Amino acid sequence: MSDAATGHIRLTSHSGGSGAPPIHWGAPTAAERGPVIGTTTTRADRNVIGTHSGSYGVYRALAVAAGKLSRQHRADLTDTTPTDTVGPFPQWSEPDAIVSLDPWGATVADVFAADLAAGRDIRPTIAVTKAHVIVPEIADAVARGRLVPDGRLLFPSGAALVTKAAIEPVWYLPGVAQRFGCSEADLRRALFEETGGMYPELVTRSDLEVFLPPIGGQTVYIFGTPADLADPRVELTARVHDECNGSDVFGSDICTCRPYLTHAIEECIVGAQNGGVGLVVYSRKEGRALGEVTKFLVYNARKRQEGGDTAEMYFTRTECVAGVQDMRFQELMPDVLQWLGIKKIHRLVSMSDMKYDAITGSGIEVGERVDLPDDLIPADARVEIDAKIAAGYFTPGAVPDADELRKAKGRSLDA
Amino acid sequence: MSDAATGHIRLTSHSGGSGAPPIHWGAPTAAERGPVIGTTTTRADRNVIGTHSGSYGVYRALAVAAGKLSRQHRADLTDTTPTDTVGPFPQWSEPDAIVSLDPWGATVADVFAADLAAGRDIRPTIAVTKAHVIVPEIADAVARGRLVPDGRLLFPSGAALVTKAAIEPVWYLPGVAQRFGCSEADLRRALFEETGGMYPELVTRSDLEVFLPPIGGQTVYIFGTPADLADPRVELTARVHDECNGSDVFGSDICTCRPYLTHAIEECIVGAQNGGVGLVVYSRKEGRALGEVTKFLVYNARKRQEGGDTAEMYFTRTECVAGVQDMRFQELMPDVLQWLGIKKIHRLVSMSDMKYDAITGSGIEVGERVDLPDDLIPADARVEIDAKIAAGYFTPGAVPDADELRKAKGRSLDA
Repeated sequence: MSDAATGHIRLTSHSGGSGAPPIHWGAPTAAERGPVIGTTTTRADRNVIGTHSGSYGVYRALAVAAGKLSRQHRADLTDTTPTDTVGPFPQWSEPDAIVSLDPWGATVADVFAADLAAGRDIRPTIAVTKAHVIVPEIADAVARGRLVPDGRLLFPSGAALVTKAAIEPVWYLPGVAQRFGCSEADLRRALFEETGGMYPELVTRSDLEVFLPPIGGQTVYIFGTPADLADPRVELTARVHDECNGSDVFGSDICTCRPYLTHAIEECIVGAQNGGVGLVVYSRKEGRALGEVTKFLVYNARKRQEGGDTAEMYFTRTECVAGVQDMRFQELMPDVLQWLGIKKIHRLVSMSDMKYDAITGSGIEVGERVDLPDDLIPADARVEIDAKIAAGYFTPGAVPDADELRKAKGRSLDA
Repeated sequence: MSDAATGHIRLTSHSGGSGAPPIHWGAPTAAERGPVIGTTTTRADRNVIGTHSGSYGVYRALAVAAGKLSRQHRADLTDTTPTDTVGPFPQWSEPDAIVSLDPWGATVADVFAADLAAGRDIRPTIAVTKAHVIVPEIADAVARGRLVPDGRLLFPSGAALVTKAAIEPVWYLPGVAQRFGCSEADLRRALFEETGGMYPELVTRSDLEVFLPPIGGQTVYIFGTPADLADPRVELTARVHDECNGSDVFGSDICTCRPYLTHAIEECIVGAQNGGVGLVVYSRKEGRALGEVTKFLVYNARKRQEGGDTAEMYFTRTECVAGVQDMRFQELMPDVLQWLGIKKIHRLVSMSDMKYDAITGSGIEVGERVDLPDDLIPADARVEIDAKIAAGYFTPGAVPDADELRKAKGRSLDA
């Protein structure tokens, strides 16, 4: 954004961008919608607030400051296009069906080829590839005979073949505001003020309706044929999972995150082997989107409070520290399902009422809900599960009563 | 930042903060250093650019916009203080030893108790707790007799007792600039311009020297007694690991990330059982800090290029897409080791020359370097390992020659 001739830094709040291509969110074709351009090289082309790569834009800045990356670098997109076709689907142009990702984000090299050839710096916000997923719990399920390798979806090693997609957030601010039931002006103002003043354009440039927020995105894992996701006749087993590094990677037993994730992967593989398709969506919302520092503070408060770690006080302790019980806001989560063309989830591997309500509220039908088998719940995580079931999470079993909720079931910090 | 009486939005670039407590980075005591205040409730107290919780500040803003969180909420820090004492250590006040985290960030409730009592909104940027880590590969090592439970550090279930700390980034901009060999002005300008204009204060408020960047932080896992980390007579086994969600969680076989992590955890447990102490630092730098979209684009380009997926072209393909081979910049990584008081790492479980150079360059002695056993390298990850060894990564074995690097060893996308 500096002027190369003078070296003058231009603050972006009140200038520029009048020659940039317009974005008509939700238009039926890519050409009518127009490209999302978050480039930092050609200021006049920018038609969004923020830049690409979510949080990692900060590292890009470090690379430039350190002299390791040319400011003018343009991505060479040769051979990078998706391994599998996703859409377009009718949902891509339904009003308000998708407001937090760019449905055309995976195919910019094709659908905006002319703009790219003309020198516009357009970057994919979605990438689709193939991989082998090797999860020890799946290998164990093979060893125990619960899963049977077929050499196609599941190999004798326990490796599962997947198509996977990484998705960066692209927020259409009027649509995001509508999801949260507030005015666009209030949303913009909160985003500006509550981040300590990030991107003044949020409040000064109402003509820029698209925001690339510096937050983590999502990863989609598909077991079976991706195109089947959009066919409601094909049984779909799905989990929408929110990141929990402490459990997903390190297997902490204070929660059920990893057991739920690996259970879902097993269900997805079985479903795909039986002629269906499986889906795991992994969203970067660590610690209920409060971050890990807050999460650990809450753990200490739970374990140290009078009466010990009880389901009764489970939500209260989070609220004391964070001001809310949960900051994940599933309101935007269904967008990725709409992007994949999903109309029906036959088996939803989740007990969360918030996720269920968000999915069905977005017009996607949900058949069966699959809870976590009791033998996969770590002893120390009983506090969490009891609290959630009492608060309305789905269970086919009994809901714990007030006496039950008051029993200290969590380990103390000294144990 | 709005004026409650008028509802007027104040842009932060050119106003406020004159009554905020000063920060004297690197001062010997917390009182002399002063608190880091990134509050969004009391504008006049702010003495930093940005706000708390890294990226998750954006979710906090959504919570306020949705009317779910009071703008005035203050964290109730009752019972949240660290389970284990870390420091203070001499490094905390050595010039330039720590520039990217706040060494006093875990103990604000104690060291800034008077400021908190006076109504200042000071938040922890570090939280320390205890946990049980349950990793299937460790349970397998127990089953195979490689690890023997002792009922104290390692339980028969395979669960390991750890002390863990979550750390949010707190950047002292003059120090960060020095690490990257650029002027503070150039760093500030790049951070502003290359993020598409995030935080104009970076270029307008040179008096604010501390930045809370909206990026992911780090998590520290300690096996054994945390205080032993600072004692160079106690054998320290350590790995500094950069996030790779596709492998760490989903076990993708295109890289060695999860095998290296679980191997390191096993080494840490053995080391602690033998009277030493173990450390794993997990840094949120997905896909070499390029993000997962770029990573998947590179995977496709590697697999599709003429000649197949070879070690020879491994770094080139990343550079074509991203403009750099790697954006992780280990320059800031040693800060967390300095925070823990570490003077010597006896066994560094890493082959990375960049990590080794950064650690030894920060004044920490490194004894043995522990590479990844060959039988833990997935077949498809041979491309990565060969490329890295040829580029200078540590190996006790042979370095592959040019012919070897040209052999296609990666699976094609169709396989």
